[in-house]
Amino acid sequence: MAPVEFWFEFASTYSYPAAIAVEQAAHDRGLTVRWRPFLLAPILQAEGWKDSPFNIYPAKGAYMWRDVARICAGQGLAFRKPTQFPRNGLLPARIACRFTGESWVPEFVRRVYAANFADDQDISSPFVIGELLTKLGQMPADILRAAQADESKNALRAQTETAIKIGLFGAPSFVVEGEIFWGGDRLEAALDWASGKRAL
Amino acid sequence: MAPVEFWFEFASTYSYPAAIAVEQAAHDRGLTVRWRPFLLAPILQAEGWKDSPFNIYPAKGAYMWRDVARICAGQGLAFRKPTQFPRNGLLPARIACRFTGESWVPEFVRRVYAANFADDQDISSPFVIGELLTKLGQMPADILRAAQADESKNALRAQTETAIKIGLFGAPSFVVEGEIFWGGDRLEAALDWASGKRAL
Repeated sequence: MAPVEFWFEFASTYSYPAAIAVEQAAHDRGLTVRWRPFLLAPILQAEGWKDSPFNIYPAKGAYMWRDVARICAGQGLAFRKPTQFPRNGLLPARIACRFTGESWVPEFVRRVYAANFADDQDISSPFVIGELLTKLGQMPADILRAAQADESKNALRAQTETAIKIGLFGAPSFVVEGEIFWGGDRLEAALDWASGKRAL
Repeated sequence: MAPVEFWFEFASTYSYPAAIAVEQAAHDRGLTVRWRPFLLAPILQAEGWKDSPFNIYPAKGAYMWRDVARICAGQGLAFRKPTQFPRNGLLPARIACRFTGESWVPEFVRRVYAANFADDQDISSPFVIGELLTKLGQMPADILRAAQADESKNALRAQTETAIKIGLFGAPSFVVEGEIFWGGDRLEAALDWASGKRAL
């Protein structure tokens, strides 16, 4: 069975409930998840957007906040509208990209999302991220230093370029053998596809 | 139990599989559907878009065509990418708005969608629409004349204004007691809400 790539951006509201749910849902069906952080800002900027479309288009934004609150409630997830949106997710994205494959990364990703969307914390702050890492039993200083190395910056840049190349334009997106499913509500469709349940 | 309002635009690809599915899915759960045609163009134009976002943003467009094909295949629905997109759905929208509540309207809506997205027919043509009406046992001349009366034009205009007022920005949208669910893939969430299954 094909692995499920989970492409996410830490600033993205809809990525939060999806990031919390994806691994358990995949494991329940015997599937594995590959975590793929990327940056949405360069993609949106290339389309002429200088801010989140949810800020630019008020009706879309009002709907999104209500919808995310509803989805989180449905999953039994804490949710609080952050006082700042979108938050800069560059630092945790570099970490998740640099250390992808490490056993602590999935839980790190989930906790960064909860920090942003349940606890209203500034996820661009090395102090906030360092504290999360400490709670996961990691050494914050080493990881934060590694995340700022050119190698890490380039890795995230390359992954964002890959996102564009394979046709991604929003987050979260699930990718299974090149097949894209955009939006957290397409999780089941992506898992079906990965399990070989394909109508097309 | 609350009725499910189905807000749709005949030019909208994602509205096609949703329009085919909504009534049966609602009836299966003892719910009724209210059909609410509206025009998306004035809403998109107010946001600065002079064409479908799927034409303006190539990655979004490429994804949409693949996604709609996948969704239709999953529902066992015929689908062919129309040679013209978006097609002008003004005429059938006026008819569906003017005759809303008539018993033939739901089937008319489904057949207009199939004409556009399965048979690649020009749904702005009175001949195409007239033929559909004839097959439904209706009198095309009377209905087409009524659809072009000021009363019908104003009714559709008013319904589009209502759409904007209640916060709609895309199609299809399900509305249940003012609660909006945007996108065909939110059908189940809307039916849950209408059935009183609400987490929030």
